[in-house]
Amino acid sequence: MRQIGVGILGFGTVGAGVVDGLQRNRGKLAERLDIDIVLRRVADLDISTDRGVAVEMSVLTTDARLVVGNPQIDIVVELIGGCGIARQLVREALEAGQSVVTANKKLLAEHGSELFELAEKKGVDLYFGASVGGGIPIIRTIREALSGNEIESILGILNGTCNYILTRMEAEGLSFDDALAAAQMEGYAEADPTLDVDGYDTLHKSAILAALAYGFTPDVHTLSVTGIRGVVDAKDIRYAKALGFRIKLLGIIRRQGGEVEVRVEPTLVAEDSMLGSVNGVFNAALVECDLAGTTLYYGRGAGRLPTASTVIGDIADVAFNRVHNAPLKVIIPKSRVPVRLKPSGEVQSRHYLRVSIKDEVGTMAKVASVLAAKGVSIASVLQQDIADASGGFVPIVILTHKARKADVEAALAEIDQLDIVGQRTVRLGIE
Amino acid sequence: MRQIGVGILGFGTVGAGVVDGLQRNRGKLAERLDIDIVLRRVADLDISTDRGVAVEMSVLTTDARLVVGNPQIDIVVELIGGCGIARQLVREALEAGQSVVTANKKLLAEHGSELFELAEKKGVDLYFGASVGGGIPIIRTIREALSGNEIESILGILNGTCNYILTRMEAEGLSFDDALAAAQMEGYAEADPTLDVDGYDTLHKSAILAALAYGFTPDVHTLSVTGIRGVVDAKDIRYAKALGFRIKLLGIIRRQGGEVEVRVEPTLVAEDSMLGSVNGVFNAALVECDLAGTTLYYGRGAGRLPTASTVIGDIADVAFNRVHNAPLKVIIPKSRVPVRLKPSGEVQSRHYLRVSIKDEVGTMAKVASVLAAKGVSIASVLQQDIADASGGFVPIVILTHKARKADVEAALAEIDQLDIVGQRTVRLGIE
Repeated sequence: MRQIGVGILGFGTVGAGVVDGLQRNRGKLAERLDIDIVLRRVADLDISTDRGVAVEMSVLTTDARLVVGNPQIDIVVELIGGCGIARQLVREALEAGQSVVTANKKLLAEHGSELFELAEKKGVDLYFGASVGGGIPIIRTIREALSGNEIESILGILNGTCNYILTRMEAEGLSFDDALAAAQMEGYAEADPTLDVDGYDTLHKSAILAALAYGFTPDVHTLSVTGIRGVVDAKDIRYAKALGFRIKLLGIIRRQGGEVEVRVEPTLVAEDSMLGSVNGVFNAALVECDLAGTTLYYGRGAGRLPTASTVIGDIADVAFNRVHNAPLKVIIPKSRVPVRLKPSGEVQSRHYLRVSIKDEVGTMAKVASVLAAKGVSIASVLQQDIADASGGFVPIVILTHKARKADVEAALAEIDQLDIVGQRTVRLGIE
Repeated sequence: MRQIGVGILGFGTVGAGVVDGLQRNRGKLAERLDIDIVLRRVADLDISTDRGVAVEMSVLTTDARLVVGNPQIDIVVELIGGCGIARQLVREALEAGQSVVTANKKLLAEHGSELFELAEKKGVDLYFGASVGGGIPIIRTIREALSGNEIESILGILNGTCNYILTRMEAEGLSFDDALAAAQMEGYAEADPTLDVDGYDTLHKSAILAALAYGFTPDVHTLSVTGIRGVVDAKDIRYAKALGFRIKLLGIIRRQGGEVEVRVEPTLVAEDSMLGSVNGVFNAALVECDLAGTTLYYGRGAGRLPTASTVIGDIADVAFNRVHNAPLKVIIPKSRVPVRLKPSGEVQSRHYLRVSIKDEVGTMAKVASVLAAKGVSIASVLQQDIADASGGFVPIVILTHKARKADVEAALAEIDQLDIVGQRTVRLGIE
């Protein structure tokens, strides 16, 4: 049986999971692939901390150069993260003719094009399944299973930390701060949760999905991103629920003609829909295509073993490709039709608005007339929770029909100037 | 750009969908694969009926031999169905060195081993993604994405007809007959619905999943199959709902040690679970693995374009494999550990029992003591719907803890003999 050598860069949570998984299921992989996948080296600056998995000392090294460029190592697995040394080592491995498997979403979202070009030039594979969706094979599915489809849209719950926080807020009526604290206690949120709760993690993942689906690599720095911190209030979760919705942080990728929408925002989804049923740390992606129609992929979006599952699935593929001398199956498609980013103001969707309004005759009519003047049409209004009244203002929830975001924002700018309106109006999308 | 020639056998619903999809998205496939996939021939005995898709007359033929063995055709797509001429043509195509893509679950479930051996001998591919799950890439996922995992279980809602019927029964309180009639009117059920409603379609699909997951090819004729016709009553759907469950026809594939459970039966699943949220004609498979944990795949399990999506995904893979001379990626794994079918009586699960019992003091105690004598422990009892009482008998619903099916059946055989018990006790599984 042909052997394929693997070296891992980064012996953190996921690195240890990959080592664990490769050890446990080496026989199973051999059964399935007819290839013996051999872990030859694991490099990390810290090789003394116990990672909960037994590795021979001869395998551990602090020297990344024993992995990168080592002719015994066919596949380099990059699990360092970030765009510093990780980028350098991935470049060097590709230059040396090694194939690379990575879970580094930031690296791909920011330097993907450069790395894919290099991989193509050198005729080696660069796989990145675990960069989006953890244990959910969403990348592989879009790339391969749906390759015969025109993809219309992808709606993703792509960050387990946010989904855990939103689930706790809904289930127990917690404030954001309390739910975040709970997530931190459970190990589901970092001490500095910025990347998660402010939406950047979801944004990086959305950019990767857009590249895969449309051959369109957006500059992540120009994309519209709204997280959940300081945006989603326990009140809004309660009102949404009263209307049959749950609030989820969604990555939204959608093509219409030559324009692609790539954005991240807290969004109302129907409570009894498949996306609405995704709770806790679980992630999911809902994909709409011309042939397959609606499909959904659900699982754990992070964590030691789920992420390792996807990394090992990539290793298996790359190993097969190397044995059969058939690399470059995974190419980021180059769109033949020019596509451009849809300006965020041009995006059409339904909207949830919570207006803080004086509880007097005629005030709602004033708000409605501003919306009407901007072409924003009201679908329904909810005013049920007078308990939330404060300072003579009551919250009114308005669900609009589909409207341009720019029109809604222009209307809200005017509405928030009215003297019958109290605190700033909250706007969320609806899908 | 390298061309790969495709020929289709069978110009029915799915055949026409594949033609449609290949025509629509030929450019997109070329973008993604760097291969031009060319439809060269479509063979069917009937080439005069309008299939809703335009095909050049020079492509249509009534002669299957212009597809099978045609050196211009690299990939033969078999969409005839059944085990007669389809089996013969698939064999001939493989013998001739053509790769085969098929959606024929019956052929694979009954003759898979023989065909895979032949494909391996000839060094060509035999792909079968659309044989299970229609537009859901469940086969590809188990085969590739989860290849680094030990698969613990697969629970599948694999038949859209049954799920549609059960959904209508629950949502509208319809009887089975009325819901079946509705499904037939909508085109979701055949005039003779036996294969669907009696569970055989789900059984064939479950057998294929077992082979993929465990390298274990059960003889489908020895498997335990219970459908929904004559088994699931509107009453049971109502009681299940009152207890927070929905009834779904599940294909259940599970390994414990050297034994694999492969069976089909109507089963209670929690209403707010992901499987419980799968309604209408949609299908889903819930997979439990050692690394990925819980994942779920959801979509349309049948239909012209969803099935075509998966067939075309297979064509794309096989085309890539041919261009790169790397066939046989998809092998049904051969288990190194001997596995055997778990006898259906040995299967452990929770059970739902509806006992028709005399409304007298002490009758419940008698039923409970029979269950206890067989080691079946009661988790909860529901008696709420006296409206269903008839002839002095009232329905009592008992949910058991985990118990061997043989023990439950032995208990029920005794219970049904008691003079305090009216009609035969209904038993369903719970997952």
